[in-house]
Formats: sequence, C-alpha cells, structure tokens
Amino acid sequence: DEFRVYAREMVEKEIEKHAADGLGKVDYALASGGARVVKHSEPFITKSGSGDVFSWLTNRNAVSNNADKILTPSFGEPGQCFPLKGDSGFVQIRLRTAIIPEAVTLEHVAKSVAYDRSSAPKNGRISGWLHKEKGTDLAADSEKMFLLTEFIYDLDKSNAQTFDVLQSAGSNVVDTIRFDFTSNHGQPHTCIYRLRVHGREPNSLVMQS
Amino acid sequence: DEFRVYAREMVEKEIEKHAADGLGKVDYALASGGARVVKHSEPFITKSGSGDVFSWLTNRNAVSNNADKILTPSFGEPGQCFPLKGDSGFVQIRLRTAIIPEAVTLEHVAKSVAYDRSSAPKNGRISGWLHKEKGTDLAADSEKMFLLTEFIYDLDKSNAQTFDVLQSAGSNVVDTIRFDFTSNHGQPHTCIYRLRVHGREPNSLVMQS
Amino acid sequence: DEFRVYAREMVEKEIEKHAADGLGKVDYALASGGARVVKHSEPFITKSGSGDVFSWLTNRNAVSNNADKILTPSFGEPGQCFPLKGDSGFVQIRLRTAIIPEAVTLEHVAKSVAYDRSSAPKNGRISGWLHKEKGTDLAADSEKMFLLTEFIYDLDKSNAQTFDVLQSAGSNVVDTIRFDFTSNHGQPHTCIYRLRVHGREPNSLVMQS
Ligand SMILES: [K+]
Ligand SMILES: [K+]
Ligand SMILES: [K+]
Repeated sequence: DEFRVYAREMVEKEIEKHAADGLGKVDYALASGGARVVKHSEPFITKSGSGDVFSWLTNRNAVSNNADKILTPSFGEPGQCFPLKGDSGFVQIRLRTAIIPEAVTLEHVAKSVAYDRSSAPKNGRISGWLHKEKGTDLAADSEKMFLLTEFIYDLDKSNAQTFDVLQSAGSNVVDTIRFDFTSNHGQPHTCIYRLRVHGREPNSLVMQS
Repeated sequence: DEFRVYAREMVEKEIEKHAADGLGKVDYALASGGARVVKHSEPFITKSGSGDVFSWLTNRNAVSNNADKILTPSFGEPGQCFPLKGDSGFVQIRLRTAIIPEAVTLEHVAKSVAYDRSSAPKNGRISGWLHKEKGTDLAADSEKMFLLTEFIYDLDKSNAQTFDVLQSAGSNVVDTIRFDFTSNHGQPHTCIYRLRVHGREPNSLVMQS
Repeated sequence: DEFRVYAREMVEKEIEKHAADGLGKVDYALASGGARVVKHSEPFITKSGSGDVFSWLTNRNAVSNNADKILTPSFGEPGQCFPLKGDSGFVQIRLRTAIIPEAVTLEHVAKSVAYDRSSAPKNGRISGWLHKEKGTDLAADSEKMFLLTEFIYDLDKSNAQTFDVLQSAGSNVVDTIRFDFTSNHGQPHTCIYRLRVHGREPNSLVMQS
C-alpha cells in the first residue's frame, strides 16, 4: 500500500513535469512569451520538410522567418529546427524580459525518433548582456558581453541538456543571450531545435533604482 | 512482482490519459471539433508573444481572430491564451453540437512554467442555452439562458480545474455556453487559456421528436 | 527501495517514449521529415472544424492541402485528420527517403476524447515500391508494387496500431507507400489521422552500387 501511494504520486508528478514543457522550468527565451531571435549566422538553405523550398524571407534585421523555431517547442518531431550553415555559427536572442540568468537548456531531437543526429551542436559557449534600446549599436553592445557558460552537447545523454550559469557571471542582469557553437557532431550544417533560458526576474524595486 | 504489474499498468493508464488531451474527457468546445467563439467582451490589445503587433482583425460578428485560442490546446506554453480587457468580461461559445452538459473545465498555464499567473480568472459563472438559428436574435437567446455553475479558479490547485454542472440545470440541452468572469487574480487584463465543455449527446430519437 | 528504483526508472522510460512521438520509433512518413502525400482518392468535402469551409485547394498533382494531416502528429485532438469520401479509398505517400520497410502504424483519435469513431478505417492493405523519378509514369510505377501487409484496425485496441511487414516482402527497398482501405467502421466517409512507416535505411555503400 505504501508502495502504491509512492508510485502513484511519483507518476503524477513526473507526468505533470512532462506536461509543463518537459522540464517544469520557466523559459525566458520562449517565442510565445515574447522572446525573439535578433541575429544569427548564415542559414542553411534547403528544401523544407514539407516539400516546398523554404521561404528564406527575412525581416529588416535579416533574421530568417525560420529562426523562431529555436524558441518554440518541437513536440518530439524531427525537422522542427533552424538549420545553420557549417559546423560553427551563432544565434542571438532577445529575452522576454531582463533576468538574472541561472541556466540554459539546449535540446535536439530524441535519439529514438531521429533520422540522424550528426547535425547537433557539440562544443560552444553562451554569453549574455543587457541591451540598451537607444544610443547604442550592436558593436557597443557586444563590448559589455560576458560569458554565462561553456558547454558540450553529449549525444549519449538526455536530448534536453541543461547547463548551469558560471559563478563568475555573478548576479548580472541580461536581456540578450548569444549562443555560439564551435563544432557539431559531423554534418556540414548544424540544426538547432530549441534553446531555453532559465533564471529569475530582479526585484522590481531594484529595477526602478 | 504483483507490485511491478500494478505500477506498470498504472503508468500506462496515466500516460494514456495525459496523451488524451490531459483529462481523457470528450470536449464539445474544441475548435478542431467544430466549436467556435461567437461573442466576447473587449479584447486586451497588446504586442504578441512573437514580437509583432497582434492583428486584431475581426470577422463580421466582431469576433477576434485570437478568440479561438480558448478552444485549442495550449501544450504547456505560456502565452497561448486569449487576453481580455479588465478583471471582468465574458466569452460566448457555440458548441460542436447540442449536448446535455455535465461539467466545464477551465485551464490556465501551469505554475512551474508561468511568468505570472495573476491574469487568471478567479470568480465567475457559466451559463448555457439552446440557440435557434432563425427568427431569433442574440437578445432573445439570452432570455432562455440558465445557470450551469458558478466557479472559483484556485491558483493552488491543478492548472486544469473541472466544475460540475449544478443539479438545478437538469437535463436541459444546450449548444451555446457563456463564460462570465467577475474577478481575476490581480492583473488589469485577464487571460483565458482554455475552456472545455463536457457532457453527453441526447439520444438521436429524442432529437428527432 | 528496490521497488522504488524500478518504478522510477520505468516511469522515466515510459514518459520518454511518450515524448518521443508516442512510440519511440523513427517515422519515414513524417511531413516535417520530408515525406509527402502524392495521390489520394476523392476527399470528403465538409465544413472544417474551425467553422470555415475547407479550402480544397489542390496543388498541380491534385493533392489536397489537407492531405498532409496524415503525416503530422494529432496530439490527441479529434478532427486533426484527412477525410476521404466513402468507406473505401487510398492514399499514396512518398517517403522521406528509400528504406527497407519493417512496420506501418495506423492511428485514429483516442476513444476517451472521440465524438464518434465510426469514420475509422477497418480493413485494408499496404503496398510499396521504388519510384523512379524519370522515364516512368505512375501507371508504370504501380506495376512494380508489392504487398507489405494487410490489416484490420480494431477499435478495441490502442489507438495507434502497428502492423509488421510480411516476410514475403523480403528486404525490398521502397520510397513510396500506398495505403488502401476497403471498409470502415460505419460512416459514409473515412477519416485518416496518421500513418507512420518504420524501417531501416539501406547501407549507403549498397545504395551507391
Ligand atoms: K523547435
Ligand atoms: K490555448
Ligand atoms: K494528424
């Protein structure tokens, strides 16, 4: 009886976590929450999964219409990613709001349903900074960039891998994240399924000061 | 061994329920099943989650294009809701077909992934009636309206909360539901993630009589 | 303690399988993976679930825009299917790539959330062949068609039913699948929610020879 109660409660909790975006952690890089991709390296142009030529329409900031796939759940579907040229590149994301970042999750398609996972990023680093809307340009921004963490995406681990932000990053507030990958698992292009950014919102009193 | 069999069967059943729209209950207010929003109070106009200004295009009945979010699964994503102005308002839904209503489920985003849940409805009531296509207007309709249930949406309970229809509603057949909320959990606007209406279809012989 | 470890590992594995498209099997007929419907029998024209008249626009091969619903997850939603006229008909699918087929999965909406399941296919057969891009026409193609399996979709079993490919199909490579249904469970039209095709890619050295 004790075991049955334990088993039932554990199952309910695990399914609840699964239903809550898989991790049950707030994601400040979610498109439906207001985050967006503001810059990225050259996209890999291909025929889309649905058989049409990808419409590589870009907005005035030269951001591909497909870039937001990175900020959207994949629901276990291979192909629901944003492909970039080469085995190195980057994506820059404006978060929903300014936060003190605590961790970043990189997700690729699950092994059991993947055709091939050699397009997954392997080594890389994640940086962050606070973007000032006016009186600055992107070059100026990048001067204030600091390292959040370096990572290795391991194909033998769970498909959603969470990397904690380094102690050295302190309690700095950021609203922009840059994801650089410097190698991948073997393909001439790299597919990014999803990036999530976890953390906490600074106290509003602190914000007003 | 007995315990293992118990645990395995329980897990399979719980995952099956989760896969079956979370509740495993037929929903007569589902958009993909043919239900639609026919009327609502003033929408809250905002920038959308994906960074564009919401296209508050409305059809000839002045129903917002975003209203059907209420009749669509949210899949654990914050932002997949229909925002209305103020802390009180209403939504009116034409069901897929006429039913004897038994319960209504109100769903908000799960606590573990929410940025803020103070836009959730708090107190309200749900009414229903049978719409006559011809020879009536909406005013006339509302005269035949009867109360299905009153509710309090409690932020400390599960994010999908089911409210049983009152005995006093009897076995009345309805094809239209009105959801009124009279307070929310603190925001100047109110977000509705999803409404489901459960019940049974009246016997077809009865219908033809 | 031993039981707790068993229960926890079993739950994690089952949820992982659920998250991996429900079955944890690679699907070569997935739209986001590059598969597409190339031909089908006459569609059932109806009002759509969302209340608009279906836009039965067809591409130059007379394939309905709604046909790809068959190659897309339904996420437990009734109505996310492709409806065909009558109680018999067919759908022809070009796979993502050429494979040695091992099994086919036919999925209908789950019993617990369905309004009515009498539009489900009942008896049928699945055939396959290797399409040659040039110098052939569809008639020629069909001459090389061979039987993969016959099936009965049983409403009393799980909603996703997997049928193994017959031994007689050998290790033939196919890139095109034809799904014929010869009866359904009672409706004047037949709804197909999803078809998946499982198998293995032939060794690339073999491919080049
Ligand atoms: K994605
Ligand atoms: K929704
Ligand atoms: K589908």
